[in-house]
This record gives sequence, structure tokens and C-alpha cells, in this order.
Amino acid sequence: MQIVIIGSGNVAYHMAKAFRLKKIPLLQIFGRNGEELKKISEELDVPYSTEHLEDADLYIICVSDNSVENVSKIITKKDVLVAHTSGSLPKEILAGEYRKSSFYPLQTFSKSKELEYEKIPFFIETETEEDKQLLFDLASQISENVMESSHEKRKYIHLTAVFACNFVNHLFARAKEVSDSQDIPFDYFLPLIDETVKKIHEIEPKAAQTGPAVRNDVRVLELHEQLLKDESLAIYKTMNHSIQKMYEL
Amino acid sequence: MQIVIIGSGNVAYHMAKAFRLKKIPLLQIFGRNGEELKKISEELDVPYSTEHLEDADLYIICVSDNSVENVSKIITKKDVLVAHTSGSLPKEILAGEYRKSSFYPLQTFSKSKELEYEKIPFFIETETEEDKQLLFDLASQISENVMESSHEKRKYIHLTAVFACNFVNHLFARAKEVSDSQDIPFDYFLPLIDETVKKIHEIEPKAAQTGPAVRNDVRVLELHEQLLKDESLAIYKTMNHSIQKMYEL
Repeated sequence: MQIVIIGSGNVAYHMAKAFRLKKIPLLQIFGRNGEELKKISEELDVPYSTEHLEDADLYIICVSDNSVENVSKIITKKDVLVAHTSGSLPKEILAGEYRKSSFYPLQTFSKSKELEYEKIPFFIETETEEDKQLLFDLASQISENVMESSHEKRKYIHLTAVFACNFVNHLFARAKEVSDSQDIPFDYFLPLIDETVKKIHEIEPKAAQTGPAVRNDVRVLELHEQLLKDESLAIYKTMNHSIQKMYEL
Repeated sequence: MQIVIIGSGNVAYHMAKAFRLKKIPLLQIFGRNGEELKKISEELDVPYSTEHLEDADLYIICVSDNSVENVSKIITKKDVLVAHTSGSLPKEILAGEYRKSSFYPLQTFSKSKELEYEKIPFFIETETEEDKQLLFDLASQISENVMESSHEKRKYIHLTAVFACNFVNHLFARAKEVSDSQDIPFDYFLPLIDETVKKIHEIEPKAAQTGPAVRNDVRVLELHEQLLKDESLAIYKTMNHSIQKMYEL
């Protein structure tokens, strides 16, 4: 099977790297950003192009959601399988006469951060049983955790991931603003952060809640509000309100 | 040195346990909740009382912020050192004629979750050099990471911890509501969550941000808002607004 990856961002890079590590042949990485493609091409020893899309059996589109539809139009062959890697788009967004599918890896990808690909859950949706088998076989070479998922379910998986990953990271960024403002090294907080996450491997997050809001410690809540402003203050109030609603305080 | 721990909650339990593990003698755990004290006493083999407070050299008050002042009044001896474990209270909240101090462990404590005490940063504030040395020596038997901290700085340490731990845990709880609503096992998200945290050991959180808000993917943001309501919707909007402000989108 000949495979082409389309895109040069974080997902394209890690997808290509996972394939190379598992000795799955890649015919090409294709995209608009020649500079990024060249870097990936050199690191992973995969041919790249910004102009000529190779004839393949499977195209995996790894571009931002906004671009998937447009990018999908450059594939003009009919007897091929095309997959996108978006958590929120239906496979029908792919605008060609080929077989359509979704190949969604549930992970946060940054080029500079190595990953254990074996642990990444892959969610697959296809038009036919045959394609399902094909993508299952492919994903199973990368990951131990491959599942089928409808578009409806995938939307909620992606939404859950936004809370559990994107928003969590943003809280770390806002937390670091607070500690930076007092020259407190953010490293001090890493054992606490590690423990916060270790805990939910053993205890339900709802049962693991600690802090002033769940204790309804009004004095501390008021003190903290005085130390904050703007977006951080808005987050502080919104989160505390949500905690107090969840525990009916 | 004779030490008494006052309180029967998560902090009191783990403080007592850390002392026992390091063979630091504990004279007594004292508090109001006889049932909880009895459990701790039996597990850790430490005497407890709800009525008679033993004469000690050091009292460590491990109760909720709201109760520290009142509880501190039960210590009537003068030539003793008293410490509270609150992140946000000044040592002057302690209402007696004894020497006052703060002994703040930066961690999230749940009775049912074991901890590596060596990694917990301890922040200490005292009235005298002698007491500082005493609490440093004590904390250093438990942890590799003991520092001095003024009340002013400690307030910000605690506030940072609320963002990086309490709010992060609440995001996990709200995320789990979303996945539970579609019968998606929350375990699917653990590799993603683990990676989110591993990442910030290597990359600044601001540089590690991914997701629809930082990509300004308006279509996904609108789709997600339709899937949410009430507190979760409020969190979604507040967090996205804050992300977009941080990256000037």
C-alpha cells in the first residue's frame, strides 16, 4: 500500500515519524510549506513535494480543520482512500469522489516533544468494511489502542480532550504568569501537577477535588480575587462557580 | 522535641504519616473528630485525643483555613512553637502568646492516595532564626525541597497551586461529564492527560498550547458551544477567551 501524508504541522510530523519508526513505507509528504516539509523530510528520510502529489492508495490529510475541505480537493483520483485526522469534522467534509474516512489520533502533538505512539488511541470511521480493516491494520501497527467511532461520538471525544488537555495546559500558562509575577520558579509546582494527574488514575476526579472552592472557604476566595485581574480573574470566578455548583455548595 | 499534630483531615493524616515513615516521634494527634482520629491513630500507631491536649514543644495545626484561628486558641502554653499549614494565612492569625510560624506543604492531599513525601516543597516562615532552623531540620527529614517564604509570597504560591491543581482537577471532572454523557470511557483520555503534563516538564506551557482556540478555529468553537450548557459552557467560553487574549488572536 502506497501512503502519502498531506500537511507539515505537528500532526503531519508525528504521523510521519510514527510510520517511519514502525517501518511503514511512506511514498511522500506533501504540502504548501516547503521549509517545514524539507525539515521533516530530512529528519525522517521521506520524499516531499509542494507541487506534485504522488499517486497513492491512501492519503492522510493532517491539516487544520479549516483547511481540510480545500486540501481534500487536490486529490482527483477516484479509486483511493482518503482520511482526515480531525476530531470534529465528518468524513463527508472530504470533497472528492474517492472513499472517505476519518483517522483520529487522540493526543496533543508538538514537534519538539517525543511521544510514545503505542499509547495513542486511534478512532476510525470508514464507508466500507474493507477500508475499516485496512485502517485498523495500519493504526494497529502504531498503537495498541484502535477503535471505531462515529462522527457523533468523535465530536464528544474531541470536546472532552479540549477540557482535559487544551484548557488544562492554558491553566498551567496562567498559573505560570502568577508565579512569574513573584519570581517563584514554576518548577516548584511540578510535583503538585504530577500528583494532580496521578491521582485521577486512581480516584474519580470529582472525588479528588481539593482547594478553597470545594471547602467553601470564602475568605481565601475573596483574598485570591484581590490578587488577580482580567482573564485570570474571569477564570478564577468561573471555575469556582462551577466547582460550587458541582458540589451544591 | 515533642510534636503534636492538630486536625484529622487530609493534611493532618499525611503529615502524621510522613513523620511516622521518617521515624520522627509524634506525641499525639488531637482534634474534634474522634472517629477520624481513631482511624489515623490505628493506622499510624500514634496516640490521639479529642479532649486532652498534650504538653509539647511544637504544635502543627492542620485544619481548614476558617478554623485555624479558633483552633490556635486551645494552645495556652507560652514557651512553645506553633505552626499552621495554610497557604494563604499569615502566621499572625495564630491567637496565642507562643512563637508563631507557618509550615506549608505544597501538595494536594487525599487520604486514599499515597504520596512521595520527599518531593513535596515545604515553605517555612518563623519569628526567629532558631525556630527557622528547627522547622528546616524537621521538614528536611521529610522532603528534599525546603524553603523559606514570606506570607506575601506564600499567598501567590497558593494561588498558583489553585490554578495548576484544583482547577485542573475540576476540568478533569467536567471533561468526564462530557465523556460519560456519551458512554466514552474516561480511561481513553489518560494518555492524553499524561502527555499534557509531561510536555510542560520540557516546554513552557505558553509554547505548548494546542487546540481550536489557539488555532482560532471558529467553526469548531461554535460546534463545541452547541454541545455544552450551563457551567461547562461558561468554562468553555471563559477559557477560549483567555487563550485568545494570551495569543492576541
